[in-house]
Amino acid sequence: MRPDPAELFELTEDGQVPSPARQTHFASHYVDGSTIDWLREEAAERERTNIQRAQFGVRGLLLPWFDAARMWLVVILTGIGIGLTGGWLDVLVKWLGDLREGRCSYGFFYNQVTCCSGVKPGEPCTEWSTWSKFFGVNVGLAQSLLHIFVYVVLAVAFAGCAAVLVKSYAPYAFHTGIPEIKAILGGYVLTSFLTPWTLLIKGLGLALAVASGLSLGKEGPLVHVACCMAFLLSRFFKQFRNSQAQQRKLLAAAAAAGVSVAFGSPLGGVLFGLEELDTFANESEVMWRGFVASAIAAVSLQYVNPFGTSKLVLFQVTNGSDTWRAFELIPWLTLGVIGGILGSLLIKLNVEIALYRRNSVLNDWPILEVVGASAITAAISYLVVFSRVQSSELVANLFQECDPTKIDYHGLCNPTAMWENVFLLILTAVMKVLFTAWTFGMMIPAGIFLPTIAIGACLGRAVGLLTQGLHRAYPTAWIFLSCPPDPSVRCISPGFYAVIGASAMLGGVTRMTISLVVILFELTGALSHVLPIMISVMASKWVGDAFGKDGGIYAQWIALRGYPWLPPVDFEDRGAQDTGTQLMRPLERLVVIEDEWNTVLDLDTLLKDYDFHGFPVVRREEFLGFVTRDKLRSALTPLLLDDSERTKRCAFSRRLSSTEEQVDFSGLLEEAVLQLREEVPKELVVNMFQKMNLRQIVFTTRGRLTGMVTKSDVASLLNCDFPHTAALGSGVRRPWA
Amino acid sequence: MRPDPAELFELTEDGQVPSPARQTHFASHYVDGSTIDWLREEAAERERTNIQRAQFGVRGLLLPWFDAARMWLVVILTGIGIGLTGGWLDVLVKWLGDLREGRCSYGFFYNQVTCCSGVKPGEPCTEWSTWSKFFGVNVGLAQSLLHIFVYVVLAVAFAGCAAVLVKSYAPYAFHTGIPEIKAILGGYVLTSFLTPWTLLIKGLGLALAVASGLSLGKEGPLVHVACCMAFLLSRFFKQFRNSQAQQRKLLAAAAAAGVSVAFGSPLGGVLFGLEELDTFANESEVMWRGFVASAIAAVSLQYVNPFGTSKLVLFQVTNGSDTWRAFELIPWLTLGVIGGILGSLLIKLNVEIALYRRNSVLNDWPILEVVGASAITAAISYLVVFSRVQSSELVANLFQECDPTKIDYHGLCNPTAMWENVFLLILTAVMKVLFTAWTFGMMIPAGIFLPTIAIGACLGRAVGLLTQGLHRAYPTAWIFLSCPPDPSVRCISPGFYAVIGASAMLGGVTRMTISLVVILFELTGALSHVLPIMISVMASKWVGDAFGKDGGIYAQWIALRGYPWLPPVDFEDRGAQDTGTQLMRPLERLVVIEDEWNTVLDLDTLLKDYDFHGFPVVRREEFLGFVTRDKLRSALTPLLLDDSERTKRCAFSRRLSSTEEQVDFSGLLEEAVLQLREEVPKELVVNMFQKMNLRQIVFTTRGRLTGMVTKSDVASLLNCDFPHTAALGSGVRRPWA
Repeated sequence: MRPDPAELFELTEDGQVPSPARQTHFASHYVDGSTIDWLREEAAERERTNIQRAQFGVRGLLLPWFDAARMWLVVILTGIGIGLTGGWLDVLVKWLGDLREGRCSYGFFYNQVTCCSGVKPGEPCTEWSTWSKFFGVNVGLAQSLLHIFVYVVLAVAFAGCAAVLVKSYAPYAFHTGIPEIKAILGGYVLTSFLTPWTLLIKGLGLALAVASGLSLGKEGPLVHVACCMAFLLSRFFKQFRNSQAQQRKLLAAAAAAGVSVAFGSPLGGVLFGLEELDTFANESEVMWRGFVASAIAAVSLQYVNPFGTSKLVLFQVTNGSDTWRAFELIPWLTLGVIGGILGSLLIKLNVEIALYRRNSVLNDWPILEVVGASAITAAISYLVVFSRVQSSELVANLFQECDPTKIDYHGLCNPTAMWENVFLLILTAVMKVLFTAWTFGMMIPAGIFLPTIAIGACLGRAVGLLTQGLHRAYPTAWIFLSCPPDPSVRCISPGFYAVIGASAMLGGVTRMTISLVVILFELTGALSHVLPIMISVMASKWVGDAFGKDGGIYAQWIALRGYPWLPPVDFEDRGAQDTGTQLMRPLERLVVIEDEWNTVLDLDTLLKDYDFHGFPVVRREEFLGFVTRDKLRSALTPLLLDDSERTKRCAFSRRLSSTEEQVDFSGLLEEAVLQLREEVPKELVVNMFQKMNLRQIVFTTRGRLTGMVTKSDVASLLNCDFPHTAALGSGVRRPWA
Repeated sequence: MRPDPAELFELTEDGQVPSPARQTHFASHYVDGSTIDWLREEAAERERTNIQRAQFGVRGLLLPWFDAARMWLVVILTGIGIGLTGGWLDVLVKWLGDLREGRCSYGFFYNQVTCCSGVKPGEPCTEWSTWSKFFGVNVGLAQSLLHIFVYVVLAVAFAGCAAVLVKSYAPYAFHTGIPEIKAILGGYVLTSFLTPWTLLIKGLGLALAVASGLSLGKEGPLVHVACCMAFLLSRFFKQFRNSQAQQRKLLAAAAAAGVSVAFGSPLGGVLFGLEELDTFANESEVMWRGFVASAIAAVSLQYVNPFGTSKLVLFQVTNGSDTWRAFELIPWLTLGVIGGILGSLLIKLNVEIALYRRNSVLNDWPILEVVGASAITAAISYLVVFSRVQSSELVANLFQECDPTKIDYHGLCNPTAMWENVFLLILTAVMKVLFTAWTFGMMIPAGIFLPTIAIGACLGRAVGLLTQGLHRAYPTAWIFLSCPPDPSVRCISPGFYAVIGASAMLGGVTRMTISLVVILFELTGALSHVLPIMISVMASKWVGDAFGKDGGIYAQWIALRGYPWLPPVDFEDRGAQDTGTQLMRPLERLVVIEDEWNTVLDLDTLLKDYDFHGFPVVRREEFLGFVTRDKLRSALTPLLLDDSERTKRCAFSRRLSSTEEQVDFSGLLEEAVLQLREEVPKELVVNMFQKMNLRQIVFTTRGRLTGMVTKSDVASLLNCDFPHTAALGSGVRRPWA
């Protein structure tokens, strides 16, 4: 007997609002820690659209249009919002950062650049006074001590404030946020991660954290802020409140806008969404929204113009020569290899430190840890000239070519100080690796992009300086034959080596490819050098993957926190025994409902005993369908009040023989669930979960239920190589099956 | 009873080469016009890898490694091959094109630039003689007549040669090739499209066609050439000959390399593969290969250095000012709208002309058509100054800003000739629209990218000139307040308007988004203007989609030729009645095999009567599994020779009661096929086909077969809006079900 399709998806064909019992399907209720069922969400979405379309006259035309309009409104507002926020955060960070060195004499709230904007180029800026000048300290040693004192104290104060804010008001505002966003976009439910408080604290804490000079960046957290913003805006519309799928489509666009603002890279934002968040695949509409949000965010950022350059390119590369020589591939590939190894090492170190933090006394004193780390970072960083400045300033200077008409940055262009510079650069890189591995994971908003770029840029510049030194020492060696014979013409551009180093290091840490290349050359404007950047990213990803099959730092953190997220890896069966049988939970270990057997009371006990998302319904062994917890609960509640009903048996299939003795639950049963045979290759099962965003697959053989596999089973299969899965449990109860 | 998984996938667990009967599964045999079964191909691939791994000792380690090495070898060689080919094609085209105007006095095979390379800048080049000088014609009118005569005659000769070559040796070398590549990558089998002959003729024909000055480009065909090259190289290895899936993974990388060379855009190539070919989705390994092939192809192209600039950027944009003003969004959005409408119109016109060609007398005289069209194009183009030069030269000049130190291109920078220039530019654009709509589809290799760029550039430059004129006329109007007050400083850059026009037009014709933006700014180097380019592409795609839901010119041609390709559109159910039931072919209309009923002779007749790819096997209504034509054929062949076997019944399921009277075919049955219930939403079915690359889905209800749906059913569902589906049938017999 064929069931009525309208019943299956609980459609009201007359276009009426469905009855309360039916609405439970409409707005599926998910608690934090559960995984949404995409197919069910999409079915609900379809249902809603169909009801709208079925309305008579103008309403039927206008309602779907309003839906689309609301979606675009939120996308556009999010774009504008994150663009403006990003711009003003930059201004705030610049001011706080400058405050560590001095203040403007005619106004406390001006940063150094604004304060000195009235001064003609070449003249000294008297309006900006360092703290020693401000306090009238003129003796050399006392001056230095005052400087380092203010520098360290303000660093500790900023970082401490950020940690207190995070700890007290929004624990989810710590860390980068990208692992959580990846998990959420994949279907994980974590509403507390997106609250307005988190938005506020993450934004404010981020500015403080960056200004404190800790080894962290604003990029990842900005993506989180953008997502919070989209979520906040979406709350105003019922359409999004009721649909987890719609929310996620919005969040994907917001994440793209966040990257767009973080790097000034609108195209990179879209590609980040495409490659790293893996949400746009085959959903052209979602990509399209990301594209729009990204472009609008970039325009808004340009409108704020936080750097006064009216450009989006943050670290402009000035390439004297647009050409590069074949022999340069040797140092560049070397940088790729170093980036791959060091990136992998950084990931491992970071994971170890995170585990140590969780299992040691530090776990109880997160704020103290932040204060201590910031004091140590500030004190040590102050000693080395390259690490004293903010990372973004360091990177911008390392990317610059030497130009006699410009100020030489800390003697980087002095050919006689080559060894000294190389030593200092490598020292800075090593320090930053250690600091970053520690900082990324503390109770403070922290991104890993900028520190990674800084490490890579230091190493790259060092390699560039060495290559240049080699060329100066042996200008006639055969390897340098392709250089112009005139020694005054530059052959090797160490600034560009820094860009290559940054690419390689980022490749090693994040294991991104295309989006990374696009972000990098939108960041630097080095379009003519796209090939070397591609090659170094390729090399570092290759080496990194060979060195540690970890899939990048975000995948590691997802595994550490045990989110049910499926990495987009190509899972491969290792033998013929790798079938669904191995993966599934067999019938014996499943909690199933027996048709026409369990009573209302039985089912109530079942719901109390097990917190699964739903239960398969069988008659003997024959699989009838699936019933979700939500539906069962709302159907049981009225029946439990009535004593005569409580002992009746529940019938889920519509049979002609149904009697008065039974309760008819046939409307609850979802019959059109995905079924496979257990003999299918494991690879295919994994692939279906990855591509179709499934929550579970039921295995049947000729109609008989044999087992079931859920998303979390697949996630743990894919993470089986990682020894510390869920070592930093997310603390949320996880009713996954 | 659970079947043995090893039997299901025909594994030989001892690691031996399987018996001949089993090998049929290994190397599935597909004829042109059929669709491959990805799941089966991947199963075969798994099987092969597992056999390799099962080998003892070093062999078990080395064999999989060799597999990977061969794959990379082909990828790298293809990259190098297409890079060099692309470079040399450019050189050939340049020489042939220059030949239409004159020749080098000291050597016939030098083009104009090489011929004059010895001359100092500023001096006239005496070595290059126009045809009138060469033949000693000095009288004005005779000179002009001689020029136009040689110009037209050579155009006709080149185009005619190309058409004869294509018609006689490789009919598949006509057109762009991208629709076919999209279909092939989606699983369509069309081996004759990738033969070495096609490679040779397409390459040679392309050079001739481009040099003839017809309104066509080399971009699409180069992608085809790259794919032919990869296919040719893959033929040397059994690994690829036997696996359609592996071949397609190679072709995807080759296509990316082709785009990389065509536009000098390595990143654009990868993104083209991602967005337009839609093959890399979720298959990071395939994207990765595309990345490598693309980079290597670009390096090879740079090595050939066909333009003598040692740059990859083909149409360098020289932006005097890096900033743009908000009011410019008005003309740019206008260009976006024009691009969307005109692009949509061009598609419609092209489809109409293609249909007219097929149904009129032209169908029988393809070479004559090419000759006629090239004569008309050459004669008319010669009259207008902008259309006389090759499209690439025109585009390069239109993208240039006016610069007093450089030669003014045909008075474009003359402010007094504004109206004249605008008129000529619009005239050129209109002419090119008509010519392109006609040319794209003739019996000649032809790409649509370059003509589209040229049309857009003309329109963009015209709009730019108008805006500039407006600014000159009313410099103090409020709308121009953001312009610098000094009139000698340029406020509006008409060259950049040409870039925007080209983006908008390309957006309208191809409906690509991200890859288009990347290609455009790799093509022009206009990184600082990525936002306006994004906005205009957005606008034109929006308008184009609103104006005609056609999914771009390639999707239209795929539909015209009736390839079973699934457009990556978001299919939406329109109501509750949209379920699998509506889509599937019901049991009554299926050709099924009845277990233990059909005799060997019956099955032989079945195979002769129906050319389906496979047949469902049932016992009464219960679905047992699927058996493919190939397997059945090879199992039947020996039995048919034996008279005593011919009348035996065939048993597909392993039952204890099987007797001597039956032939045991249980090894042929694939039991682990994908089954759905027919009540699932149509949207889900379409989605599964799109994402999982399926060939068919079997519908069962509690074990009973109810129907089946194949890829071609889904393809025709998605193309149901298009009135001319398969109007230009591909001429290949299509055994799709």
